[in-house]
Amino acid sequence: MPNPSNINIAILGASGYTGAELLRLLAYHPHANIVALSGESQAGKAIGEVYPHLSHLNHRLVKLEDVHYDAVDVVFCCLPHGTTQPVLAGLPRDLRIVDLSADFRLHDPEDYAQWYGHAHQAPDLQHEAVYGLTEWQRDKIEAARLIANPGCYPTCSLLALLPLVKAKCIEAEAITIDAMSGVTGAGRAAKQPMLFSEVNDGVKAYGVGGHRHVAEMEQEVATLSGEPVSINFTPHLVPMSRGMSATIHAQLADGMRTEDCRAALNKRYQYEPFVTVCEEGVTPSTHEVRGTNHCRIAVFEGRRAGSVILLSAIDNLVKGASGQAVQNMNRMFGFEETLGLSHSAVFP
Amino acid sequence: MPNPSNINIAILGASGYTGAELLRLLAYHPHANIVALSGESQAGKAIGEVYPHLSHLNHRLVKLEDVHYDAVDVVFCCLPHGTTQPVLAGLPRDLRIVDLSADFRLHDPEDYAQWYGHAHQAPDLQHEAVYGLTEWQRDKIEAARLIANPGCYPTCSLLALLPLVKAKCIEAEAITIDAMSGVTGAGRAAKQPMLFSEVNDGVKAYGVGGHRHVAEMEQEVATLSGEPVSINFTPHLVPMSRGMSATIHAQLADGMRTEDCRAALNKRYQYEPFVTVCEEGVTPSTHEVRGTNHCRIAVFEGRRAGSVILLSAIDNLVKGASGQAVQNMNRMFGFEETLGLSHSAVFP
Amino acid sequence: MPNPSNINIAILGASGYTGAELLRLLAYHPHANIVALSGESQAGKAIGEVYPHLSHLNHRLVKLEDVHYDAVDVVFCCLPHGTTQPVLAGLPRDLRIVDLSADFRLHDPEDYAQWYGHAHQAPDLQHEAVYGLTEWQRDKIEAARLIANPGCYPTCSLLALLPLVKAKCIEAEAITIDAMSGVTGAGRAAKQPMLFSEVNDGVKAYGVGGHRHVAEMEQEVATLSGEPVSINFTPHLVPMSRGMSATIHAQLADGMRTEDCRAALNKRYQYEPFVTVCEEGVTPSTHEVRGTNHCRIAVFEGRRAGSVILLSAIDNLVKGASGQAVQNMNRMFGFEETLGLSHSAVFP
Amino acid sequence: MPNPSNINIAILGASGYTGAELLRLLAYHPHANIVALSGESQAGKAIGEVYPHLSHLNHRLVKLEDVHYDAVDVVFCCLPHGTTQPVLAGLPRDLRIVDLSADFRLHDPEDYAQWYGHAHQAPDLQHEAVYGLTEWQRDKIEAARLIANPGCYPTCSLLALLPLVKAKCIEAEAITIDAMSGVTGAGRAAKQPMLFSEVNDGVKAYGVGGHRHVAEMEQEVATLSGEPVSINFTPHLVPMSRGMSATIHAQLADGMRTEDCRAALNKRYQYEPFVTVCEEGVTPSTHEVRGTNHCRIAVFEGRRAGSVILLSAIDNLVKGASGQAVQNMNRMFGFEETLGLSHSAVFP
Repeated sequence: MPNPSNINIAILGASGYTGAELLRLLAYHPHANIVALSGESQAGKAIGEVYPHLSHLNHRLVKLEDVHYDAVDVVFCCLPHGTTQPVLAGLPRDLRIVDLSADFRLHDPEDYAQWYGHAHQAPDLQHEAVYGLTEWQRDKIEAARLIANPGCYPTCSLLALLPLVKAKCIEAEAITIDAMSGVTGAGRAAKQPMLFSEVNDGVKAYGVGGHRHVAEMEQEVATLSGEPVSINFTPHLVPMSRGMSATIHAQLADGMRTEDCRAALNKRYQYEPFVTVCEEGVTPSTHEVRGTNHCRIAVFEGRRAGSVILLSAIDNLVKGASGQAVQNMNRMFGFEETLGLSHSAVFP
Repeated sequence: MPNPSNINIAILGASGYTGAELLRLLAYHPHANIVALSGESQAGKAIGEVYPHLSHLNHRLVKLEDVHYDAVDVVFCCLPHGTTQPVLAGLPRDLRIVDLSADFRLHDPEDYAQWYGHAHQAPDLQHEAVYGLTEWQRDKIEAARLIANPGCYPTCSLLALLPLVKAKCIEAEAITIDAMSGVTGAGRAAKQPMLFSEVNDGVKAYGVGGHRHVAEMEQEVATLSGEPVSINFTPHLVPMSRGMSATIHAQLADGMRTEDCRAALNKRYQYEPFVTVCEEGVTPSTHEVRGTNHCRIAVFEGRRAGSVILLSAIDNLVKGASGQAVQNMNRMFGFEETLGLSHSAVFP
Repeated sequence: MPNPSNINIAILGASGYTGAELLRLLAYHPHANIVALSGESQAGKAIGEVYPHLSHLNHRLVKLEDVHYDAVDVVFCCLPHGTTQPVLAGLPRDLRIVDLSADFRLHDPEDYAQWYGHAHQAPDLQHEAVYGLTEWQRDKIEAARLIANPGCYPTCSLLALLPLVKAKCIEAEAITIDAMSGVTGAGRAAKQPMLFSEVNDGVKAYGVGGHRHVAEMEQEVATLSGEPVSINFTPHLVPMSRGMSATIHAQLADGMRTEDCRAALNKRYQYEPFVTVCEEGVTPSTHEVRGTNHCRIAVFEGRRAGSVILLSAIDNLVKGASGQAVQNMNRMFGFEETLGLSHSAVFP
Repeated sequence: MPNPSNINIAILGASGYTGAELLRLLAYHPHANIVALSGESQAGKAIGEVYPHLSHLNHRLVKLEDVHYDAVDVVFCCLPHGTTQPVLAGLPRDLRIVDLSADFRLHDPEDYAQWYGHAHQAPDLQHEAVYGLTEWQRDKIEAARLIANPGCYPTCSLLALLPLVKAKCIEAEAITIDAMSGVTGAGRAAKQPMLFSEVNDGVKAYGVGGHRHVAEMEQEVATLSGEPVSINFTPHLVPMSRGMSATIHAQLADGMRTEDCRAALNKRYQYEPFVTVCEEGVTPSTHEVRGTNHCRIAVFEGRRAGSVILLSAIDNLVKGASGQAVQNMNRMFGFEETLGLSHSAVFP
């Protein structure tokens, strides 16, 4: 484990929202030293031209090929899904990597090929990658070279589900998740369906039955429960910039009650700085975590006998992406896990 | 059945959103003649002072006690839940009534007492009331004196569910509904949680496990299926003014497939002017029904074997309230059902 | 003037927001018969695939070159600014045209060249075009072959300003306008700055000092006042889908008072179906005109001696574009001016 | 000047938005120690019950009368306008106070009486109060006992105007300001016009010609220019939670050009940590300052000869209220001015 001295950081694909969010968080991290930002179409520009809210930072974007890795300790990779594999395979072996794309989240090459439509291009790295749900993989993260930072929906859902799966409070094979995401989840590339006028004042489900994030969820639940599972997952686009909420339905295991679920959650997360289990009767709102790395979870008795309802709220850009990436970096380099991540939510 | 000549209308509680929406819709209805509007706290004001967008209408609000019913044919009652019963009990018997409150939706006095915490104050009327889900109760509506206009969540959910229950495509006892509502559903009374700054850019579940609308849904599904059912229903508040979306999970009955569900929906609604079953793969958005009396429904195969997912979208103030009320009025008085309700959605 | 019988309509560029809004309005116009819709990139699709909220209409988009004009009476042209001139120059001479682009709004070829950076490509048509601010050009519109439908900002501003210029209540050469627009004004093409996440929960001025719409305003004010004028016009993008508001500052002419301004406005608009002058002390909101062809205007005394403040609100897609286009069509073909345009605003 | 050791803080009226924002900012201030929070209607509750996003803070609200001031160094007063005067008059004389209400912003008792409709109830304190526009009153703030924290509109406008008034670039007597505010400016009390459904997707001017904040602006401009001034100020409510933007029109003084204005702004603010003058052609957005204490200012040439346009953007709850209050506290107690206020904006 390295000393908790300053580390040098390169961010690849820094012109997207997750890149900008990394910059926002790392700007006041006491040990972070940004040394390179890449962004193909914006190369040559100061970051303040691309993101005026970051104009107090003195960084300039370069092309990916112009990033020098000599003095770099850790790379955050925010490249588009599918383009990351050859890039990461070509990085010096002494670099540590937090990859925010989906490229290394699935461990099984066949799973990957099935969900993404082509064979994985860096199967060795795929094998090596650690799924970086921090609260559940701390030991592996400390030792890892390559972290596959979890997707936003899986982070939001798994943090609520895993304690109940582990404590065998629920039947792992009967999980239904309806989730809502802010629009930043779709990235900054110009797409007609994400125009303000298309999204404002309305809601819509999408990817019904086939969103790729379900593969991550099934992988992690199955790993913990020991058997393959199929999850019904329906994401919805709602008119907010950031925020994510999951409403999760499960069947209680034999002899289990809602209180057992709450107890399992409380026990698992009582010392966690970034996970809060709400008191009975309290429902979490995405407002309460906006801009922060926190996850708020609640558990409710279902009306149908034997059913339990979990609610989970995160900021999709923070705990669902860049914040958890910084949390993982902190763990990898022996820093306190909360460094650079201690904020109150910006509400209203 | 009366002649399709003009009818005189009184709206009680016209200062709320459903009252205003009735006025918007009835203003250009060829046979509607508004003769009285009541609104206690706003009595004496012109409607344009209370709702500037209606200032082209020449109506003035009066106190409830000052409404004269002599020339009135139909009363729309938009009074708050719980206050409606004595008012309606005191109306002349020759008046026909469309009640938009929840007061007469539950047929069973015990059900009512359990959900609303007190005995029903007009049990005779309760017995007489017809649950006005138009597409499913046309004959009864034509003959009814008192229509209990359905709630927004039940309308949105039942329109999708009932054809599958009736065709025995799904197991009625394993239904889970996650729904989202625009903020107008909470009415116009000033409440801190409904302030713009509290709602904007965030989402939140509410009434988890105990929202009163579930009682209506269970009543109607049970009536059709012939057995008592318990439904898991979780509403969510999202930052939009109007619109409602339900994501409904059900188990296919033995031998049934998703295609059978789609076929049942298509068959049931092929001639309906206000219900559209989306083509395969298309997800409905609330944008597509904003300002209209339409309901758009889609059916998707679930990822878990034997599961089916229904999506349903309405405008909560129109098909979920005032539009359906006008639709019911049209049916009661022998007008074409679409009169006053033919609009394209206002999008974007 | 033709008989008020049904007319056949082609819409060129129907896949943009103004095209869709024309369809929304014309769908229930008693004399409108849509016979052709063009849309290059979407050619071949049913309109419901491009705009699901219009899926009740049975139209299919074709390429511009595949539009047959034989049976067409009037063309609405919604093509992008700058591409319209050669298209309109090539249309049969017996067609009447309402052009929603900016291409024919400026009468002076030099003005056009200066503001748009190139010589006008159809100067004969430019000469022939009538600036279609309906309330101010009725006679010319009736006789016109080609209407240049005004821009949204000019419509909103000129309706408030022109009565005061005409009545010499204000000094035409000292006008300052700060205006706000909903995001639909930027069209449906995918552009990063118009993404929901970029616009939501923030405001921004744009085009400061150089927005092209100011040329239209100056032209019309100068025509009425008889001398050249320069207007300070600053538009702002605000997070709403539709709606436009102008706050206009002017200097009272010698001996004039705020009451004279109000009197001039009231006199000019007292019989207008689509323009309302608010009562003293009432400020108009864009909410009150959403989805309608109405303009609401208010006049206030400025705090600085001799200054007057005008407020004007419209729906940018209706009175600011497609609604005024239909109003102009009604006038051209001898229909009642309000046909197809009688709606209450959709509020909330 | 006290040592930069920790200070004890009481917040009176902590249940409103400015109180909550103080808590958000002070939570991670290295020298701030919150010892008391008052809130009448919420007394007895933990802050996390009133503001779930602050539930990581262990504070409980008490009644105003139960605040003990023995160990308190500074009081932030967030009580409603008009109620503050007797409270502050009754505080121990050794306390320092930052008052966020409007009660002590006007120096002239007659001015106060005219704008607020009653005589000032604590004229001695009024005389003593320092108008806390930090960048312009540093010396006085250091020595002050009572800071009248400026209003949001005045902060946003004066930061842009004062350098030009001081450098005599503009005529102080011909200023027109159109400004837009997020809804948090109206506070957390439940009011119908601030409901989500009333505000969403629309804009509206308010307080035209008579908003009280204009008195502050006129006072400060007049003090600097040496002559009385009248400012035309029109605020607008726009659908965003936080953010404020002012578009300011002025006449250049004889011989002055836009470049002189930019030079004066640049010179005045070049070393300021919280004020940025945008490069030529760049317009500031409220997005860029959300959650921060920053002000971004731009200057543009007007189209009318001799006119200049200033744009200014702040977060109304931070630089426009609680952030500037902390900045003033830092200055009063000899801390670095940026302590607790170093954040990147939360965008998107």
